[in-house]
Amino acid sequence: MILIKLGGSVISNKNKPFSFNDSVVKNIASELKKFYPKKKFIIIHGGGSFGHPLAKKYGIRNGLDGKEKLIGFSHTHQAMLDLNKKIIEIFLEKELPAFSISPSSIFITDNGKIVYGSIKIIEEAIKINLIPVLFGDVVIDVSKKIDILSGDAIMSYLASMLDVEKAIFLMDVDGIYDRSPNDEKARLIDELNEEAKISAIEGKFDVTGGIKNKIREAMKMDCIVYFINGLDEGNLTKAIEGKKVGTIKKGK
Amino acid sequence: MILIKLGGSVISNKNKPFSFNDSVVKNIASELKKFYPKKKFIIIHGGGSFGHPLAKKYGIRNGLDGKEKLIGFSHTHQAMLDLNKKIIEIFLEKELPAFSISPSSIFITDNGKIVYGSIKIIEEAIKINLIPVLFGDVVIDVSKKIDILSGDAIMSYLASMLDVEKAIFLMDVDGIYDRSPNDEKARLIDELNEEAKISAIEGKFDVTGGIKNKIREAMKMDCIVYFINGLDEGNLTKAIEGKKVGTIKKGK
Repeated sequence: MILIKLGGSVISNKNKPFSFNDSVVKNIASELKKFYPKKKFIIIHGGGSFGHPLAKKYGIRNGLDGKEKLIGFSHTHQAMLDLNKKIIEIFLEKELPAFSISPSSIFITDNGKIVYGSIKIIEEAIKINLIPVLFGDVVIDVSKKIDILSGDAIMSYLASMLDVEKAIFLMDVDGIYDRSPNDEKARLIDELNEEAKISAIEGKFDVTGGIKNKIREAMKMDCIVYFINGLDEGNLTKAIEGKKVGTIKKGK
Repeated sequence: MILIKLGGSVISNKNKPFSFNDSVVKNIASELKKFYPKKKFIIIHGGGSFGHPLAKKYGIRNGLDGKEKLIGFSHTHQAMLDLNKKIIEIFLEKELPAFSISPSSIFITDNGKIVYGSIKIIEEAIKINLIPVLFGDVVIDVSKKIDILSGDAIMSYLASMLDVEKAIFLMDVDGIYDRSPNDEKARLIDELNEEAKISAIEGKFDVTGGIKNKIREAMKMDCIVYFINGLDEGNLTKAIEGKKVGTIKKGK
């Protein structure tokens, strides 16, 4: 089983609300098609310009502090379903049976960490060759009542609960750099390891913590992890086939 | 806690694909608003002209017998999410924090009967005053691999699992009749009881079994059950307040 994270900045333009990168998602679906159903996939996508603006607007991460927060909680989930639908439809057009599973219907967190997860339907869906598609979502939280659950956190949770051979993070840069990719001196890291000075790596901030959080979640995983540029056709194929691309973290 | 089933023929015109009774749903939301948050509600809606045509087209009830069935399975779920979104949006406009929970993400059936249900999120959502909104949906089935789970079956399952004081079925007729409501001799039944010749009651067929199935599910419930005309404003208020309206089945 392979977990694939479609970064919010790959499937949408984070600076343009409700924008969707149709052609990129079509390419991703075409690449996966070559391996389906021989390989089993679970797709998890980020919020991009659909989820993040609403999550910020309503201050979901600050927890429940008023009735209007509940309205915003539901609006944010609906925006994520809108984005999710666009992805599902592209997959279905390519005859890939992508199937939407709402994280807010199956997970409960405690300060951002998943403390309850009902993943039986994910397991059963995979058995009959469906491709479960989850996403960063609002979530009920034990401490804060409401919160945001990042797609990255779902990746590491599923990696710990399921028999996962590989996790692939699709990003809008070529992998993990030792400093901001915009910095001239930035150097792509071929292989991440515990000793790498992760704390020194810079990254953009978004409501779910950006690049540092992504690396933190990836380091928790026992499986092989790829960080690749999801905007370049062919990279996903290379990662699935185990060829050299982007930044890799070896399995434990 | 009160369970409310919005029949497919109340929220849409079953003869007109993808039709939605906007004004009826607005009235329903306005009536519920009078009781929220003092009363706790769970809403379950039917497939109406969104879910049923697709479920039939793809033959979902016949189980999994080919890859195109998986595509249809996902398409049917997406159509239900479209209908669900329309309802959620009307509730949010009225400042009722309706929150979508996908039945296909939390239930597994065996030949139509729920054998696995993860309802923890429903319980936690109610605690923080969200109004969970579920719906008749596609479902993974132990025997048939895929199936349809009716909103009526969800009603009786939730009634058996949660502390429910009342279940209200909104229909497009005034309640349960002793024969087809179109028959001149049809008589409205004031109170349903075990002795009533339920088997003699006639009803229209839809993919989830129609009126007979609805009564069968209702008879399983220990709580008070109302069958009322959801097209007439004021009926829902009466049922919530325990006044005489439609057909009633007393609590056990």
